[in-house]
Amino acid sequence: MLLGLTHRRCLLKCRSVKSQTTRSAVVDSALSAFRSICGEDGVSLAAAVREQHGKDESVHRCRPPDVVVFPRCVEEVSAVAKVCHKHDFPIIPFGTGTGLEGGVGAVKGGVCFSLRNMDQVLDLHQEDFDVTVEPGVTRKALNAYLRDTGLWFPVDPGADASLCGMAATSASGTNAVRYGTMRENVLNLEVVLADGTIVHTAGKGRRPRKTSAGYNLTNLFVGSEGTLGIITKTTLRLYGIPESMVSAICSFPSVQAAVDSTVQILQSGVPIARIEFLDDVMIDACNRFSSLSYPVTPTLFLEFHGSERSLEEQVNTAEDITQSNGGSDFQWARDPETRNKLWKARHDAWYAAQALRPGCKAYSTDVCVPLSQLPQIIVETKEDLMENRLTGPIAGHVGDGNFHCLMVVDPDDPEELHRVHLFTERLARRALAMDGTCTGEHGVGLGKRALLCEELGHTSIQVMQGLKDALDPKNLMNPEKVLQLRRV
Amino acid sequence: MLLGLTHRRCLLKCRSVKSQTTRSAVVDSALSAFRSICGEDGVSLAAAVREQHGKDESVHRCRPPDVVVFPRCVEEVSAVAKVCHKHDFPIIPFGTGTGLEGGVGAVKGGVCFSLRNMDQVLDLHQEDFDVTVEPGVTRKALNAYLRDTGLWFPVDPGADASLCGMAATSASGTNAVRYGTMRENVLNLEVVLADGTIVHTAGKGRRPRKTSAGYNLTNLFVGSEGTLGIITKTTLRLYGIPESMVSAICSFPSVQAAVDSTVQILQSGVPIARIEFLDDVMIDACNRFSSLSYPVTPTLFLEFHGSERSLEEQVNTAEDITQSNGGSDFQWARDPETRNKLWKARHDAWYAAQALRPGCKAYSTDVCVPLSQLPQIIVETKEDLMENRLTGPIAGHVGDGNFHCLMVVDPDDPEELHRVHLFTERLARRALAMDGTCTGEHGVGLGKRALLCEELGHTSIQVMQGLKDALDPKNLMNPEKVLQLRRV
Repeated sequence: MLLGLTHRRCLLKCRSVKSQTTRSAVVDSALSAFRSICGEDGVSLAAAVREQHGKDESVHRCRPPDVVVFPRCVEEVSAVAKVCHKHDFPIIPFGTGTGLEGGVGAVKGGVCFSLRNMDQVLDLHQEDFDVTVEPGVTRKALNAYLRDTGLWFPVDPGADASLCGMAATSASGTNAVRYGTMRENVLNLEVVLADGTIVHTAGKGRRPRKTSAGYNLTNLFVGSEGTLGIITKTTLRLYGIPESMVSAICSFPSVQAAVDSTVQILQSGVPIARIEFLDDVMIDACNRFSSLSYPVTPTLFLEFHGSERSLEEQVNTAEDITQSNGGSDFQWARDPETRNKLWKARHDAWYAAQALRPGCKAYSTDVCVPLSQLPQIIVETKEDLMENRLTGPIAGHVGDGNFHCLMVVDPDDPEELHRVHLFTERLARRALAMDGTCTGEHGVGLGKRALLCEELGHTSIQVMQGLKDALDPKNLMNPEKVLQLRRV
Repeated sequence: MLLGLTHRRCLLKCRSVKSQTTRSAVVDSALSAFRSICGEDGVSLAAAVREQHGKDESVHRCRPPDVVVFPRCVEEVSAVAKVCHKHDFPIIPFGTGTGLEGGVGAVKGGVCFSLRNMDQVLDLHQEDFDVTVEPGVTRKALNAYLRDTGLWFPVDPGADASLCGMAATSASGTNAVRYGTMRENVLNLEVVLADGTIVHTAGKGRRPRKTSAGYNLTNLFVGSEGTLGIITKTTLRLYGIPESMVSAICSFPSVQAAVDSTVQILQSGVPIARIEFLDDVMIDACNRFSSLSYPVTPTLFLEFHGSERSLEEQVNTAEDITQSNGGSDFQWARDPETRNKLWKARHDAWYAAQALRPGCKAYSTDVCVPLSQLPQIIVETKEDLMENRLTGPIAGHVGDGNFHCLMVVDPDDPEELHRVHLFTERLARRALAMDGTCTGEHGVGLGKRALLCEELGHTSIQVMQGLKDALDPKNLMNPEKVLQLRRV
């Protein structure tokens, strides 16, 4: 009962309810409404469930929601949202909890909408290269579903995130240099607004590959991190699975040489599918973790997609370019087993980083700069890490100018957490000073709200706040995320 | 003086001014302010100038603005906008007037902002593949500027439109299947809002290749057709000029065979750069106009970009696919002269269509559907044209499912204009019934506002109206375009 009471105390903060007795009655009535909408099993007040739904993979402080609901269809999402709207309860959408900037923390308490029970792949149109999925479908689940169709969805942020969550955070990852980010691959969204209204951003069921019909609502919701609405369906572009893939790895004498190779490979028109940078610290960690013996120097992992013949040419061109920049001989691999072995180091980077300091937690921070600025920012960042006694191996989607420091931090050491916090701020400001952004793909969440203001300036923030106010005048949708509370 | 008076009568309609004398004084004071901001030469009341700035290349009725201003920099745009805002004068941005849905007509009178004097290419960053341009820079001017850099900007709507205008209308065209539309290629915008505020959608000077920092303001303004703000700068992605290009043309026994070939070429992973469909009527018109002798059957024009070796493979794959669908032998060409000759038919399609009925005007209407629906919609549309005695050869960016009917119409025959109007509505509704859109690349303007409502439904339109109200509460920015005036 204690939990129920705690829960009630939280919900009771809602603005529309005055006296203690009335509050209690409102909460009881709301819970009863949730249960009648989602079923008895579809509403949870359990501490463990609330705890699990209030945190992501970041080190941002967890604040659990007051209650977690598990709607089974958009109508239930809409009905629960209407109840929340009536009582001014905050609404927090939850996919897989794999975010990295505290986007699912219930800063003001409220109702977490866990969307895992909506897990259907809908409306696959093979000939049109599109599919619609519910929010419980993860990218791996979709690709498993597509296995026999010759099609795949290439956006790959690493984590097996939900595709609607990936839309909400504008995710991207290793394949973005070839296939784009979620922004380029979402054709339509079904969204439930704060008041329960169901909106189809490009019109219900529509899926043309391009459109200029009205404002681009789809891309307003992509990357809005749950602050404008709950994404309950996303229609995605699919791609033909390439005939062949070749992977390669190459070591360089310097960061500059690795980045110069990247720029030249892009300039040469090689349609590279992945081009990933790992710094010496990262490679060293990978060697230790996976018992490998790559040279401990800046390294590129590459992947080429295409026909057998075109791959040969792509690989040759890339190899010539890397060698002219002092790169080692390519190690390359065509068969899946050797390719997987080659990429193992990159795929295990997170765990390899974490293993550098057993008992510590890895936390990835991300920035993105114009390509030409990469060598300088990486060199400066490595110096900063050294000076401040921080462990932060660097891995990056270097073809986009996007990279991460995998901070390995003792979560129980407030002094170190503070140093990491100051470091991530300096890193972001370094990116901003180079015409870049404080986040290329992780989003703003709780962690980068102040940096967002520095990045965009007052007028752009005001415009964003105006849009937020227009769509969510009561500020119920994932409050305190992306935009900071205005001081009134 | 008559013109001045006419002009004054129009401007005088502004809501904030009551008495006749005060109105006159307000207009005089506004004109005087415009002149002091833009210079004496920077303000025109001349009938011919106003007329020219009130129309585009459509058949929508022209309504000239009351005055045309020619600002020279963003500060002047902002200052003029502030004067307009103070007096409730409508604001209509004008690039090159090459639009196709009446987007520049001054429906409620007001001030046309002709941006041709802001024609500088700014901040070319070759190594980062980006450039920033002012609104007077057209796509051909930019590509001429880039000639010696090895880079180009591929989005090509046909007309030599201004790049900021192309951003405003979310233009695309023949290369979109490979390089995307303006939505995928604009990195940042400088926009002047209705009240004169200057906003940088991704933060001033920022140009990372990807970002997830806050709401996607850039893509909210891309395609907003001047109804949310005036685009005064756009930062664009550039691409390396391909090592080689090969063009090809192939005839088919049916629309289905041409479209099947397109789908299979896309599925095969051939990175086709252009794949353009022309129906039998269009090819016939091209033959007549350019003294060519292509078979009068559904035809594909194709273009391949890449390295010498990869092109051979691309062409072979495409040729195999077309032949398996009953296509004729490829006519293909590698050297620029033969390529240009081959593409001449496609490039001259507009004039060829117009020449079918001397003295008439060509008017292009556009829709976009999922690829698999193309054969059916094209066949039905051709029947509709026949039944309704209309001349409308079909040309399309078939790799995107996007096609146009080039309506050839007597602009002085109201009955025929009415028939064309009814036809374009039926065509759009046919696209909507197939999960498509009423406009793939021309935009909504004046012509497709009612269809937009059918396409998106009431709630999406309301969301768009809410965004419009948030950014332009006085409804001054290009009023009556995209969204229809609400009945209060």
